[in-house]
Amino acid sequence: MTTALRPLTGYFFEDYSVGQHFVHATPRTITAGDVALYIALTGARQAPHCAATVAQALGYPDTPVDDMLVFHIAFGKTVPDVSYNAVANLGYADVRFTSPVYAGDTIRCESTVIGLKENSNRKTGVVYVRSTAYNQREEQVLTWARWVMINKRHQESPAQDTVVPMLPRHVAEHDLVIPAGLTPRALGPAFTASARNWTNYEVGEIIDHPAGMTIDESDHTLATKLYQNTARVHFDQHHMKDSRFGRRLVYGGHIISICRALSFDGLENVISIAAINGGSHLNPTFAGDTIYAKSVVLDKQPLSDELGALRLRLMGIKNDPPGQVVVQSHDLPPSVVLDLDYTVLMPRH
Amino acid sequence: MTTALRPLTGYFFEDYSVGQHFVHATPRTITAGDVALYIALTGARQAPHCAATVAQALGYPDTPVDDMLVFHIAFGKTVPDVSYNAVANLGYADVRFTSPVYAGDTIRCESTVIGLKENSNRKTGVVYVRSTAYNQREEQVLTWARWVMINKRHQESPAQDTVVPMLPRHVAEHDLVIPAGLTPRALGPAFTASARNWTNYEVGEIIDHPAGMTIDESDHTLATKLYQNTARVHFDQHHMKDSRFGRRLVYGGHIISICRALSFDGLENVISIAAINGGSHLNPTFAGDTIYAKSVVLDKQPLSDELGALRLRLMGIKNDPPGQVVVQSHDLPPSVVLDLDYTVLMPRH
Amino acid sequence: MTTALRPLTGYFFEDYSVGQHFVHATPRTITAGDVALYIALTGARQAPHCAATVAQALGYPDTPVDDMLVFHIAFGKTVPDVSYNAVANLGYADVRFTSPVYAGDTIRCESTVIGLKENSNRKTGVVYVRSTAYNQREEQVLTWARWVMINKRHQESPAQDTVVPMLPRHVAEHDLVIPAGLTPRALGPAFTASARNWTNYEVGEIIDHPAGMTIDESDHTLATKLYQNTARVHFDQHHMKDSRFGRRLVYGGHIISICRALSFDGLENVISIAAINGGSHLNPTFAGDTIYAKSVVLDKQPLSDELGALRLRLMGIKNDPPGQVVVQSHDLPPSVVLDLDYTVLMPRH
Repeated sequence: MTTALRPLTGYFFEDYSVGQHFVHATPRTITAGDVALYIALTGARQAPHCAATVAQALGYPDTPVDDMLVFHIAFGKTVPDVSYNAVANLGYADVRFTSPVYAGDTIRCESTVIGLKENSNRKTGVVYVRSTAYNQREEQVLTWARWVMINKRHQESPAQDTVVPMLPRHVAEHDLVIPAGLTPRALGPAFTASARNWTNYEVGEIIDHPAGMTIDESDHTLATKLYQNTARVHFDQHHMKDSRFGRRLVYGGHIISICRALSFDGLENVISIAAINGGSHLNPTFAGDTIYAKSVVLDKQPLSDELGALRLRLMGIKNDPPGQVVVQSHDLPPSVVLDLDYTVLMPRH
Repeated sequence: MTTALRPLTGYFFEDYSVGQHFVHATPRTITAGDVALYIALTGARQAPHCAATVAQALGYPDTPVDDMLVFHIAFGKTVPDVSYNAVANLGYADVRFTSPVYAGDTIRCESTVIGLKENSNRKTGVVYVRSTAYNQREEQVLTWARWVMINKRHQESPAQDTVVPMLPRHVAEHDLVIPAGLTPRALGPAFTASARNWTNYEVGEIIDHPAGMTIDESDHTLATKLYQNTARVHFDQHHMKDSRFGRRLVYGGHIISICRALSFDGLENVISIAAINGGSHLNPTFAGDTIYAKSVVLDKQPLSDELGALRLRLMGIKNDPPGQVVVQSHDLPPSVVLDLDYTVLMPRH
Repeated sequence: MTTALRPLTGYFFEDYSVGQHFVHATPRTITAGDVALYIALTGARQAPHCAATVAQALGYPDTPVDDMLVFHIAFGKTVPDVSYNAVANLGYADVRFTSPVYAGDTIRCESTVIGLKENSNRKTGVVYVRSTAYNQREEQVLTWARWVMINKRHQESPAQDTVVPMLPRHVAEHDLVIPAGLTPRALGPAFTASARNWTNYEVGEIIDHPAGMTIDESDHTLATKLYQNTARVHFDQHHMKDSRFGRRLVYGGHIISICRALSFDGLENVISIAAINGGSHLNPTFAGDTIYAKSVVLDKQPLSDELGALRLRLMGIKNDPPGQVVVQSHDLPPSVVLDLDYTVLMPRH
């Protein structure tokens, strides 16, 4: 099977086999237009992605595109081949940002099936995929594993051999890629109005980010269309009115971006996201919901005299200020929509 | 009368005369920002307009701007002089895309009145206009004919001589402009995940595009403002609440763009739109409606060993999956909002 | 106190002192993406900001960014330090646009407290701030004074000495900055379809701009996020549902931009905004409101043989066509949401 014969209505569980490879449709040149839209859609204020002066002070040749914007565009390309008929997006792991992306770069994406596991109900199965995005020089910019629950076409189809891939619980320190020529200490109060740096954070520290952001239908659908993500749950109200939700779902990635934008107040001097270790979308978000964010410092590792890695838990909470959610709880309230484990780079003084 | 004296409230039927010429306001430089917004507003995935790598492989010097974005921007310029007081946008004909447009190009637009016909009720008349858009090098990039129904200022005004222009039923094959240096066969599965090309389509073939897209107030009004289209029916809820619809109307051109975006799944290897032969907006669309698209192959003509033209009927259908609409019917259901006849270029193998 | 220690929940009245200086967070490179979004969000059609051909004809080296877009981006930077806990944005004065901004320029912003006045209720006080925006060459591009009412943290805190700064009632003619190399007469009917120029306007003249524009939740929040303005009244529905309005407020600056966009019809040949002399947001605007605009010519001054300054009163009116508002009234109806006094440059023939 080649992608050239992909049915217009997407693949079902039986169509996948371990080792199967997809070259996804529509390479995408990321431009200053995408960058401006990303700010408008999320309110992002992370300085290295907003200002050429900051980027240059940090040693980048140009303003690097926000890591999550790169992720969303790359992710969107996989949807028609990987998750068009997905029942649920179960998780991410081993997401590594391996090379900065600049306006003008063209991203394309490929995926390989790395695991398959039929569910005991025989109606669905889990498909594990490794996806990788490349720029126009064929340099890898991003790689990630993801697993989704996919409907079977026919319940009676014979089960495939189960293959469950080994995935790291978190990206190891030696797998974090530090941008070449980075001068981390350039990021500080002159650019971010905050002197807080890697040294000041403590493992276990909890940060309740003060702001909330309400999502409306047009802004989440604009975001998802910008990413050329074709999952109909986000776009097609006529289809969704008969779903159990009765309405369109906000793309989970948009929640990650909003939480990251909100986390600026308290994590002002993040240079970039180096990795996403894992994450789950615990509950759906709908237009009209207001998202708040809470961070917990899970771990900190020095990377050089000037640079450190912070491993953070980022929680997205809907319609509930973050101070009211107890993060240690094993029984998170239904207002928690996102639970993400990721690693950022930060200057060390 | 010169456009310099245009009344702020626009022209009425009596103000027009055959041969009258308008130089429309506000030239517009199209940028990467417009291109990104167009993707966000429509979900367009047509590869030649999304990626510099694809455009270059096809022989373009740079990424060509989506033909419909060029059309909407050029069209918007004509509204204050042509259709500010329009009762209805009756039709288009002989729309020819004659030169690719690139980010950085500045578009300006002129129109000439080519026909006038008072309606028998003496309250309105039809104005026929030929409009042409030019780039900053005074090269024609687009030309089209359009006719609109315009209110008379006074019912008792004497009738003008009727002039009805001859317009082609469709743009002739020899009038289709093929971009210089085009290498059509570069477009294929590596870029679009689809090997289907001109050779594979058959006259009479029907394609039910699988996806639907719901329109909300902010996204259709953002689109129309981006095009600087000032027709108040799209923007002014206070004015429209007393209209027979009670609400704002979605710009018909936005429906064309959404249908074209949806048509990617099934027509993945379209290189560009060469012409729009004709089209009608059969029913209004409002915020909250979900648009689906259906294509019918009307004709196919080889243009070279490597390139063919497909003449397509593109139907936009609201709140009704496309499989349920019988296209041969002379009594189309009210869910059909768009019926467009256009011609695209496609690689031939 | 340095901004490096800014509390995440912002400052209260007691935290301010005269002479206190803030270097605001997150410099921002303005790009073609921002410019396109500004058009989409406001419908702006002012020709010098829309087309490279027009800008070059006027003697600009490149297309200048709309003055109000520059203002909003600079203003947004001040919010976390100046107005995060503001009860009301009381007024602007002495706003001077001192150097054109081009796509690619990076704007940063600083503020100094220039006055303090506790209110007699001892619950709030007024903070006066002078803010200045610079480009990446440290050239001043914009400077303005603003005063806001801020909550006290504790009612019993001792009163600070009252300092009320002297601010000009309007920016003096000799303080208006004319862009270097400007060739004003290049702006005219070939670009704007209007021959009206400085010579044609009369002091006292009233212009009822014909169009109205309805604001929806997504578009005003996209605008405010684009400007990285973090005032929660615009974004956080969960917070605002318990406010006296019960809902999000539209950023007042968005109203200025919409009114200026609407004012194109009647003021087609404005080259740029040289100054804002003063302004008040008289009533709140909410999603669903339709904004209309009315201009009054307050004054006109020749600046050279080819250039004149028009001082204009720009009124924004919600859900009420502009012809029904009597501008001389001292008892403006509650439909008037904006009353702005500003000065523009216009060709003189």
